[in-house]
Amino acid sequence: MIKVGIVGGTGYTGAELLRLFAQHPQAEVVMLTSRKENGHRADALFPHLRGHCDLAFTTPDPAELANCDAVFFATPHGTAMQMAPDLVARGVRVIDLSADFRLRDPVVFKDWYKLEHTAPDLLAEAVYGLPEVHREAIRKARVVANPGCYPTSVQLGLLPLLEAGAIEFDGVIADCKSGVSGAGREAKIGSLFCEASDSFKAYGVQGHRHLPEILQGVADIAGHPVGLNFVPHLLPLVRGIHATLYARLKRHDLDLQRLYEDRYAGEPFVDVAPAGDHPETRGVRGANTCRVAVHLAPDRRTVIVLSVIDNLVKGASGQAVQNFNLMFGLDECLGLRAPPLTP
Amino acid sequence: MIKVGIVGGTGYTGAELLRLFAQHPQAEVVMLTSRKENGHRADALFPHLRGHCDLAFTTPDPAELANCDAVFFATPHGTAMQMAPDLVARGVRVIDLSADFRLRDPVVFKDWYKLEHTAPDLLAEAVYGLPEVHREAIRKARVVANPGCYPTSVQLGLLPLLEAGAIEFDGVIADCKSGVSGAGREAKIGSLFCEASDSFKAYGVQGHRHLPEILQGVADIAGHPVGLNFVPHLLPLVRGIHATLYARLKRHDLDLQRLYEDRYAGEPFVDVAPAGDHPETRGVRGANTCRVAVHLAPDRRTVIVLSVIDNLVKGASGQAVQNFNLMFGLDECLGLRAPPLTP
Amino acid sequence: MIKVGIVGGTGYTGAELLRLFAQHPQAEVVMLTSRKENGHRADALFPHLRGHCDLAFTTPDPAELANCDAVFFATPHGTAMQMAPDLVARGVRVIDLSADFRLRDPVVFKDWYKLEHTAPDLLAEAVYGLPEVHREAIRKARVVANPGCYPTSVQLGLLPLLEAGAIEFDGVIADCKSGVSGAGREAKIGSLFCEASDSFKAYGVQGHRHLPEILQGVADIAGHPVGLNFVPHLLPLVRGIHATLYARLKRHDLDLQRLYEDRYAGEPFVDVAPAGDHPETRGVRGANTCRVAVHLAPDRRTVIVLSVIDNLVKGASGQAVQNFNLMFGLDECLGLRAPPLTP
Amino acid sequence: MIKVGIVGGTGYTGAELLRLFAQHPQAEVVMLTSRKENGHRADALFPHLRGHCDLAFTTPDPAELANCDAVFFATPHGTAMQMAPDLVARGVRVIDLSADFRLRDPVVFKDWYKLEHTAPDLLAEAVYGLPEVHREAIRKARVVANPGCYPTSVQLGLLPLLEAGAIEFDGVIADCKSGVSGAGREAKIGSLFCEASDSFKAYGVQGHRHLPEILQGVADIAGHPVGLNFVPHLLPLVRGIHATLYARLKRHDLDLQRLYEDRYAGEPFVDVAPAGDHPETRGVRGANTCRVAVHLAPDRRTVIVLSVIDNLVKGASGQAVQNFNLMFGLDECLGLRAPPLTP
Repeated sequence: MIKVGIVGGTGYTGAELLRLFAQHPQAEVVMLTSRKENGHRADALFPHLRGHCDLAFTTPDPAELANCDAVFFATPHGTAMQMAPDLVARGVRVIDLSADFRLRDPVVFKDWYKLEHTAPDLLAEAVYGLPEVHREAIRKARVVANPGCYPTSVQLGLLPLLEAGAIEFDGVIADCKSGVSGAGREAKIGSLFCEASDSFKAYGVQGHRHLPEILQGVADIAGHPVGLNFVPHLLPLVRGIHATLYARLKRHDLDLQRLYEDRYAGEPFVDVAPAGDHPETRGVRGANTCRVAVHLAPDRRTVIVLSVIDNLVKGASGQAVQNFNLMFGLDECLGLRAPPLTP
Repeated sequence: MIKVGIVGGTGYTGAELLRLFAQHPQAEVVMLTSRKENGHRADALFPHLRGHCDLAFTTPDPAELANCDAVFFATPHGTAMQMAPDLVARGVRVIDLSADFRLRDPVVFKDWYKLEHTAPDLLAEAVYGLPEVHREAIRKARVVANPGCYPTSVQLGLLPLLEAGAIEFDGVIADCKSGVSGAGREAKIGSLFCEASDSFKAYGVQGHRHLPEILQGVADIAGHPVGLNFVPHLLPLVRGIHATLYARLKRHDLDLQRLYEDRYAGEPFVDVAPAGDHPETRGVRGANTCRVAVHLAPDRRTVIVLSVIDNLVKGASGQAVQNFNLMFGLDECLGLRAPPLTP
Repeated sequence: MIKVGIVGGTGYTGAELLRLFAQHPQAEVVMLTSRKENGHRADALFPHLRGHCDLAFTTPDPAELANCDAVFFATPHGTAMQMAPDLVARGVRVIDLSADFRLRDPVVFKDWYKLEHTAPDLLAEAVYGLPEVHREAIRKARVVANPGCYPTSVQLGLLPLLEAGAIEFDGVIADCKSGVSGAGREAKIGSLFCEASDSFKAYGVQGHRHLPEILQGVADIAGHPVGLNFVPHLLPLVRGIHATLYARLKRHDLDLQRLYEDRYAGEPFVDVAPAGDHPETRGVRGANTCRVAVHLAPDRRTVIVLSVIDNLVKGASGQAVQNFNLMFGLDECLGLRAPPLTP
Repeated sequence: MIKVGIVGGTGYTGAELLRLFAQHPQAEVVMLTSRKENGHRADALFPHLRGHCDLAFTTPDPAELANCDAVFFATPHGTAMQMAPDLVARGVRVIDLSADFRLRDPVVFKDWYKLEHTAPDLLAEAVYGLPEVHREAIRKARVVANPGCYPTSVQLGLLPLLEAGAIEFDGVIADCKSGVSGAGREAKIGSLFCEASDSFKAYGVQGHRHLPEILQGVADIAGHPVGLNFVPHLLPLVRGIHATLYARLKRHDLDLQRLYEDRYAGEPFVDVAPAGDHPETRGVRGANTCRVAVHLAPDRRTVIVLSVIDNLVKGASGQAVQNFNLMFGLDECLGLRAPPLTP
């Protein structure tokens, strides 16, 4: 069994890693850290894991973590860049679910996260963990920057269009909606049931940390900068992101449905919905699937893409396990085969 | 007291009219019709109205309805155009919450509703009941076509920009999200709790009946056709519409916040949110308010407007009462002054 | 206009007092305090109050509060007992929504709240503000202890049975369910959307602070101690309490429906549901109504009462306004006449 | 692979059987029937099954169903009793998720379901499929009556107490709360999102079809009739049942926590929560677990049991798969090992 450590296991992405690894036949979580919950059992904090996880939280100790084959960071930004260099030096493969290794340019990182990057060398070698774009590099990576949830949904939604040169490079709109679990398991007024339920609102219109990551990712795919407006919204549901993407068509010779089906034919975790479909977020709840539907708008000049993921799975912990499988030469789908839970 | 009749009182807009008129000091609902519920008390169907409404449903009878000063149609499309001509001929003022009198062109109506319009003359004189645009005409109207919910949120969101010639006439995006009550009180699988809750999806990307109404309305305001893509989405909440509107700026000399505040300064039911704000749908729950926020996007070339309403109030029954007040020379706010219910 | 002050206006009961007083024709909130939000406008914190409340929060100042005719405490326990004596001495009427004046015995208070009571004299004269039981005393009271939400639903549910000596004095079960707003507007993990939504659980089986209040109240009504088990549960909804009450019938000669209808015939805020009915919490959402249904169980020996309130209205701020109206000799229903909001 | 047929696959329990069998290593669903959806793919109706189920619905044909090793009925009552005798005669093992074989006495069946039982012989041999009580009989059964959701939660909650003779045989209260999926995937007004969300109510106080099943089950376990009042309530959530059970202790010498832990020590799908715990419905969402907590009430004379299940899994399809595993001599946990989905 491959030995796995999880740093920062008290949030939703940490719990989700535990849930997914409980079903993984070739890996075992052997260490779970949290300064605050040190000594407490994970299944006391997360009773749904009773019978599926016997670990207790420990205080993070670099020497002990170095006994793991792989370490996942499910921490706020700023932690992984401190701890990863030492682990990597000791031969541990690192998968960082935080933002520390996502933005290639440390200046951009500092702009958006207000922190000096402390591991610029490792940042330079880190691989952006979107397997549909960087699969081969991920296999060999020592550090994988697991993509953000919004960026995953947007990039997978636009990928076939950008690769085919099918859309204009500016005026792209990414109107995105996320469930509340995207805000994490932190006691904040805005995340209270009585604040977030039975309501809907936009946020971060003037700037959201996932914007530079999206811009970097779509430019990489397109080989050209892309002008894109991104508006995130808060949905009154737990899990799910729905990206509604609008772009002006440049090529009118393409069968859009076919373009998507061809591009994603071999991808185990991207499902192209039937022509004319409107995918639901619940249709991928708990699963590592991104489901996309592509529509030519009634004006015949605009392409509209609907892209849904479970933000905690394909948007975080599931994609991290997918990257882990790639890094260790395993079947990419191990631990990720259970169907979504609907209704 | 002005005597009011409601045809088709078993849906959510009918119940909402009863709720609002229960607080109206100068009008009284004297007749409430439903073939199916004939003889049953309204408060048996709607227990929240116990103590606020003593009416029983009756079978619609034109002669009796003609004793009313005003008749509201809270029916599916196709009913009002049958019954309204006779009522109008007898001097009754009609406010139609259905789509029958919204589209000026009977050909467009037939295209979208698959029905021949049976009252083209009355259609020709009907006034579109968006008070912020047509207040004076509404005062004198014999028939008011109460706007659809999505069209209300979109038109009030774009109005100041269109009137000021501030945006390009094409490439407008209306990404709209509605609560489930917009689908009405009908037993449909898609509206079930277990289908609609904890999920989110788009629908009608290839065409929605509110699109021609929106296009007609924005063209009227702009004095020019406007190219606009409209994508409705279904929110897992009861009441509320959030329109996220994107347009390319043509004029860069404008203070957008000021433009909105000036335009809506005298409007009792449009509230311009403070600069930088993100209004929530719950902030207008139960109230006749449309709250709009205007943002210059980070790209400095796109304007993003956030517009929220309660689809059952400003998007339906509240706006209908507002129109009623105007038609009868009353204070426009009568019956509509109670604050929203939050949380 | 009667001048009203609210101490601790940043929680849900404070906001609800503002909402209700916005509709009150003879009272005006003139002071709203919060140390933390000092200087900020109330409608910045509560955007639904935009246009309905122009106040800003101030730091609580006893001298200024003394200019009010009435002061409401919407604070955690421990504050009102500190500030009320001085205010009462200056002639201010006090309505305390916290627990400070609910439990007659300071020893019991200390047992449950872990605080020494600092105003035992005022405690001795305070009137328990359940108008259906103590209306005349409330009219003359200088300090009213506004009942807790669970205790209101339980006492109004059992009142006719207890007064009529219809049930055994032990073995009563109060299985109660509350919406999340009962936990207040505090940033706690357990109140997060992602923790409380789409789930249900009991809490406090081993003891809840509302138990001694319930026991005191039902004993007062019955004139005899009542053995009662109380289990609160957390509902995934915002507003609403549903008490399901079970008791063994002692008298079998009573028409239970009639007993309830007769007892509550003159009560403006208790509605006896039709025989056989199952009231919904949403049927009183936003209103000061307690709706009760009484059932003889199929075993013919047990009486089952279903009692619903909006915990923020009849369970808190609405009942407080009702008490205020009584204390100032006003029509008991002022500010409380708007119908519930459903759906 | 064991060949499985599902009759009536368009409801939630049918879809849930498909989800569970997609993870079952030794069985395969080969036939899925629905008259109404004949010819349509299952994953068109249930998009979450895309990639996990390639079947299309067919019209039920007894001859073809007879090719299956096991047939599950996920139909309304009345169908299984018509079709099962023939299938059993042909050697097919039948698991009926409907009520047709749950009530031993055909007179009681007729009383509650208003249908004459058409297969009284098969009824006489059918085994009640609660493995914790009837495991050995289930192994050999030709027909298993899969228990109802409420009866499962109540019986597993009371089982250790009844077997130990720990409680009085009358005055038991089962205050039960169920998510909306318990009402099935039928277009009914009462199950609409706008009717069921953000609200809570009791129903069926005067009688619910699960009452005779509960009474039969607890009497079987106790070896004595048990006087029990059952009140079901509707929760605004999709999956989950919470039974709050009250009984008067007869024996005071027992360590209740130990009693439960001992009784359920070998049970793979009953988890005794730690002493003092309050299990949440979401803690078993999607899983076949029943989690129970037992409390001695503060009055020291009442025992309070909290019992939670996912009504679609342990309350329906999961328990059906568990029974299937037993009937075919498989590991009881096959296909049922995935952890719950939380949050």
